[in-house]
Amino acid sequence: MSGSAPKPDAPALSGVLPPVPTTFRPEDGGFAEAPFVDNLERWMEHPLAGVLVLGSNGEAPLLTDDECDAVVIAARRAVPRERILLVGTGRQSTAATIGATRRAFEAGADAALVVTPSYFRDRMTPEALRHHYEAVAGEAPGPILLYHVPAFTAVNLAVPTALELASHPRIAGIKDSSGDVTRMERLTAGAPPGFAVLTGNASVLYPSLALGAAGAILAAACVAPATCCDLWRAVGDGDHARARALQARLTPLARAVTSRHGVAGLKALLEHLGWHGGPVRPPLRELSPAERADLAETWSRFEAGEEAP
Amino acid sequence: MSGSAPKPDAPALSGVLPPVPTTFRPEDGGFAEAPFVDNLERWMEHPLAGVLVLGSNGEAPLLTDDECDAVVIAARRAVPRERILLVGTGRQSTAATIGATRRAFEAGADAALVVTPSYFRDRMTPEALRHHYEAVAGEAPGPILLYHVPAFTAVNLAVPTALELASHPRIAGIKDSSGDVTRMERLTAGAPPGFAVLTGNASVLYPSLALGAAGAILAAACVAPATCCDLWRAVGDGDHARARALQARLTPLARAVTSRHGVAGLKALLEHLGWHGGPVRPPLRELSPAERADLAETWSRFEAGEEAP
Amino acid sequence: MSGSAPKPDAPALSGVLPPVPTTFRPEDGGFAEAPFVDNLERWMEHPLAGVLVLGSNGEAPLLTDDECDAVVIAARRAVPRERILLVGTGRQSTAATIGATRRAFEAGADAALVVTPSYFRDRMTPEALRHHYEAVAGEAPGPILLYHVPAFTAVNLAVPTALELASHPRIAGIKDSSGDVTRMERLTAGAPPGFAVLTGNASVLYPSLALGAAGAILAAACVAPATCCDLWRAVGDGDHARARALQARLTPLARAVTSRHGVAGLKALLEHLGWHGGPVRPPLRELSPAERADLAETWSRFEAGEEAP
Amino acid sequence: MSGSAPKPDAPALSGVLPPVPTTFRPEDGGFAEAPFVDNLERWMEHPLAGVLVLGSNGEAPLLTDDECDAVVIAARRAVPRERILLVGTGRQSTAATIGATRRAFEAGADAALVVTPSYFRDRMTPEALRHHYEAVAGEAPGPILLYHVPAFTAVNLAVPTALELASHPRIAGIKDSSGDVTRMERLTAGAPPGFAVLTGNASVLYPSLALGAAGAILAAACVAPATCCDLWRAVGDGDHARARALQARLTPLARAVTSRHGVAGLKALLEHLGWHGGPVRPPLRELSPAERADLAETWSRFEAGEEAP
Repeated sequence: MSGSAPKPDAPALSGVLPPVPTTFRPEDGGFAEAPFVDNLERWMEHPLAGVLVLGSNGEAPLLTDDECDAVVIAARRAVPRERILLVGTGRQSTAATIGATRRAFEAGADAALVVTPSYFRDRMTPEALRHHYEAVAGEAPGPILLYHVPAFTAVNLAVPTALELASHPRIAGIKDSSGDVTRMERLTAGAPPGFAVLTGNASVLYPSLALGAAGAILAAACVAPATCCDLWRAVGDGDHARARALQARLTPLARAVTSRHGVAGLKALLEHLGWHGGPVRPPLRELSPAERADLAETWSRFEAGEEAP
Repeated sequence: MSGSAPKPDAPALSGVLPPVPTTFRPEDGGFAEAPFVDNLERWMEHPLAGVLVLGSNGEAPLLTDDECDAVVIAARRAVPRERILLVGTGRQSTAATIGATRRAFEAGADAALVVTPSYFRDRMTPEALRHHYEAVAGEAPGPILLYHVPAFTAVNLAVPTALELASHPRIAGIKDSSGDVTRMERLTAGAPPGFAVLTGNASVLYPSLALGAAGAILAAACVAPATCCDLWRAVGDGDHARARALQARLTPLARAVTSRHGVAGLKALLEHLGWHGGPVRPPLRELSPAERADLAETWSRFEAGEEAP
Repeated sequence: MSGSAPKPDAPALSGVLPPVPTTFRPEDGGFAEAPFVDNLERWMEHPLAGVLVLGSNGEAPLLTDDECDAVVIAARRAVPRERILLVGTGRQSTAATIGATRRAFEAGADAALVVTPSYFRDRMTPEALRHHYEAVAGEAPGPILLYHVPAFTAVNLAVPTALELASHPRIAGIKDSSGDVTRMERLTAGAPPGFAVLTGNASVLYPSLALGAAGAILAAACVAPATCCDLWRAVGDGDHARARALQARLTPLARAVTSRHGVAGLKALLEHLGWHGGPVRPPLRELSPAERADLAETWSRFEAGEEAP
Repeated sequence: MSGSAPKPDAPALSGVLPPVPTTFRPEDGGFAEAPFVDNLERWMEHPLAGVLVLGSNGEAPLLTDDECDAVVIAARRAVPRERILLVGTGRQSTAATIGATRRAFEAGADAALVVTPSYFRDRMTPEALRHHYEAVAGEAPGPILLYHVPAFTAVNLAVPTALELASHPRIAGIKDSSGDVTRMERLTAGAPPGFAVLTGNASVLYPSLALGAAGAILAAACVAPATCCDLWRAVGDGDHARARALQARLTPLARAVTSRHGVAGLKALLEHLGWHGGPVRPPLRELSPAERADLAETWSRFEAGEEAP
C-alpha cells in the first residue's frame, strides 16, 4: 500500500481490493466460514491492498445482521493487520447504518463502505445524502467511504456533494461504480489530499488510475487478482502502454462477472478456477449451463491473452 | 366491501385502503403507538376497505423487525375483523420475506403486500421474480399481493409475469403503483376471477376503476378518505360524470402527497388537518416552510373544490 | 363530428382519425398516389372525423418537401370538406416549421399537427417550446395542434406549458402520444373550452375518452376503424361496459401496430387485410416472416374477439 | 497530423478538430459567410487537424440544403487542402443522407460525418443501422465517419455494430460523443488499423487518447484550440502528467460550452473572446444575462489556470 498522505485517523487507502463473495452452505444456505476463509487466504497471496466484505458481491442485502457479524469476524482472522479490511455497512435508515457501522468496527473492520440509501430514492437529494453521511461519519468509530453505485441503487450522489463530504475528517474516500470517467476526473481533480477515489469498474481501471484514482474495488480482482494488481502497478510506474494492454485483456472478463452474469457469475467462475463459489441466495438465481459455458469461454480467452505489446 | 368472487382462501379485496404512516416519538424517534392507533380509529369512521401498514408510506424500510411486529399488533387492535389489515412484508432476500410474512400473519395480518426485491435489480428477471413470489406464496399462512412500484424499486414486474402468478391460489392480487394505465388495462383484462387489481396512484384512480380495477391503496386516502371512497362508489354506481369530477379535484392533492412531497408531506398534511403526523426517519427529511405552505395551499384548493358538475 | 364549442377560427375537433401511411412505389420508392387515394376512400366509408397525413406513420421525416405537397394535394382530393384533413408539419427549425405549415394549408389542410422539435432536445425547455409554438401559431393560416410524442422525440412538452399554449387562438388542441393517462387527466381538466385533447395511444383510448378527451389519432384506426369509432361512440353514449370490452379487444392489436412492429407492421397488416401497404423507406426495415406471422395471428384473435360482455 | 496507417482511400484522421458554429446575420438570420470564414482562418493558425462543419454545433438540423452547400463551399476556401474538411451529412432517410453526402463531397468535403437517424429511434436496431451505413458508404464519393451522439439522438449505435462497420473500406472512423469511456476502450481495442476512433467529449479527452483514440472533435476546441492541441500532443509525447493537468483545466470549460449552455453558449463565448458568434436559430434560444455571466466566469477561471504541475 502506498499513496498520498492519509487523513489523520484514516489508513492510507490505495491499491486493489476484491469485493469478496460470501460463501453459503449448499445444504442449508447458511454462511459457510471455512471456504470463505480459504478463499481469503488465497487472495492474501497477491499484493492486494486488502479486501471488501459485505459489499454487493458479498450479497450483503441478503444477509441478517448476525451473519454480517460472523462474516467480519471470519474475515479479520484471515486478513492480516497490514491489509485493509473494508466492510459494507450501508442500510436504508441512517440509524441502522450507524448501528451496522459500529458493529463492523467492533468485529474488526478497518474502514466501512457506506452505500447510498436507495428505497426512497426520489428523496435522496444532495441535502439528504449530506446529512446521512455526516450523521454516519459522526458516529463511526473509524473511517468511512462513500459508495456510489447507481446500477444497484438508482440514486445519484452528485460530484459536488461527494466533494463537500470529502473534507469531513472521518470520510476517507469514495468508491464510484458508475463507470462514468468524467466523474472520476472531477472527483480526483477536486478531492482534498488523502481522500481516496476508488473506481468500482474494472472496465475503466486504467483511465481511472491515469486520472489519479488511488485504487479500485473490482469483482474482476476476485478472479484475476494478479492482472488487476499488475495494471495498478503499471500506472504507478508510468508504463502506460502496458497498462493499456492489460486493460484490453481485462475488460471482457470484467464485463462477464458484472453486467453480464453478476454475483452468480462471479461465484461460478471462482468454482471453475478451483476456488470456492457455491450457491447464491434467492431471489438471485444460479447460472444456466449456457451462461456457464459463456463464462468458461471468456476465461479461456483471458488466459490466452498476451499481456503486453 | 364487495367485488367479484374471492379465491378460496382469500378475503374479497376491493375498495379503498390508505397506506398509513408509522408515527414516531419526537423525543427519541421510536414507534409511537397511541397516535398511530388514534389515526387508525379515525380512518375506521370512513367506509374504507381496510388499511395497509408497513408500506412505503409506513417507512417500512426504515423500521426494525421488532418495530414491524409492534406496528402490526397495534393496527390489529384498531382495525376491526371485518376490515382488511394488509401488511407490507417485502424484503431483499426471499428467506427474509418469508420470515416477515409469517410474522405479519402471526401478529394479525389478513394479507401481505410483497414488494419486488430491488437491490439486485438487473437480476430481477421475470424468472427470478416468479420464483421469488412462488416461494413466498408457498410459505405464506394467508393471501399475498404482488407490489409493483418502480418509482421506489426501479424494477419492472412485467404484466405477463404478474398474470402468470395470478393463478397461484395464495396470490390474491396486485398493487400496481406505476401509474401506467395500459398496465391496469392489461392486468384487469387478463386476470382470473377473484384476483384483485389495485392501483397505487390516486392520479389514475377513476380510469383504473373504469377499466375494472377492484380498488386502490392511496396516500391521498389518508388525508381525503371520503373523497376517495366517494369516487370508488361513483364508478360502482355507473356515475362516471361524478367520478370524473372527483378525479379532477383529487389529482392535485394526490400529486402533492406523493411525487412532490413524499412521506414527509403526507405526515405534514395530516398534522395540518389535526391528525397525528410527526417526524420522519432519516435519511428522509422534514419539509421546508415553503413546502409546508405549498401543501397548505394545495389543501385549501382541494377543500374549496366543487365535487360534481 | 361533435364536441364542445370550437374556437372562433377552428373546426370542432373530435372523433377518431387514422394517421395514414404514405404509400410508395415498389419499383423506385417514390410516392404512389393511386393506392394512397384508394386507401383514403375506403377509410372515408367509416364515421371517422377525418385523417392525419404526414404524421409519424406517414413516414414524414423521410419525405422531401415536394413529396409532402403531393401527399397533401392527393389527400385533399379524397377527403371531403366535411371531414378534417390534418397535416403533420413539424420540422427541427421554427422557420422551416412555419414554411411547411403554410405549404400544407395552401395544399388544402384544415389544420396542422406540429411535433416538438427534438434534435436539440436538452434545449427544448418550456420557454423554448412556448416560443416555438407561439411563432408557428402566429404565422399559421389556420389552426394548429401541439404534438407530444416522447417515444419518437425524447422531448417532454410539460402539461403546464401545453395548457399555457392552449389559450392561443390558433392553437386548437393537442395530440398526446405519451400513453400517460395522468397527462390526459390534467390536460382535459385544465384546458379551456374548445381546446381538443386527443390521445395518440389506442391502448388508453377508453380511459382517455372517459376523462374527457375529445378524440384520438390512432394507428389502430387504420386497420380497425369501425372498432375505434364504436368505442368513441360508446363513451359518448355512456355505455362504459361496452367501451371497456372494446378496449380489451383493441389493446393487443394496437400494441402490434405500434410498439411491437411500427410503421412497417402497420403497412404489412394493411396488405394482409387487402388494403394497400407497400414498402417502408430506409432506414426503416420490412418485417421478417416471423413478425408477419405474429401480426397475422394478432389479427385473427382480434377478429375472433367478442365485442361486448 | 499523424497516426496509424490510413485506409487505402481515406486520409489519415488524427488530431483535434473544432465543430465550428454556423454564423448567421443578425438582421435576417441568413448564413453570414464573412464572419464564418474569418473564424476559420483564425482556427487555422492553430495546429488543428482540420474542422467539422455542419455538425450539431453548426446547427445543421436547422439549415436548408442550399445553406449547407454554401457553408461547405465557404469552408473549403478557408481550410487548406492539407487540413481535413469534415462535413456533417446525416439525415433521417437513407436516401437523403446519400444525397447530402454527395453534395458535400462535390462542394469540397474531405470526409463526411454521418449521425445515426433518430426519429424512428425504436426501430434503429443494429441491423437497421448497419444497412443504413452500408448504403451510405456504398454511395459516398469519399470516406465517411460514424457518429454516435445519444444526447441528441437517443439512439444507441452498439459497439459490436460499429466494429462490424469498421471493416468497410469507405468507413474511416467514428466520432463517439457518449462520454462513455468503456466504449472508447472497446472501440480502440477492437477497431482495425486505420479506423479512427474520435471522442466528441472534451471531458474525457485525456483518458480517450490514453486508451488509443486517434483524436477528438470538441466544442471546447473552438474556444481553447491551443489547450486541446497541447493535450493531444502531450499524450503523443507520453507526458501523462501534463495531459492530466491540462484535462483538469479543460473539463470545467468543456462542460460550460456543451451540457450547460449548448450551442448558444459556444457562440456567446466566442463573442466574449473577440471571435464571431452571433445569434442561434430558433427554436434554440439566446443565453440569459445570468448564463452569460456564468460563461465569463468559467472562462476567467480557465485563463487563470496553471497548465502543468
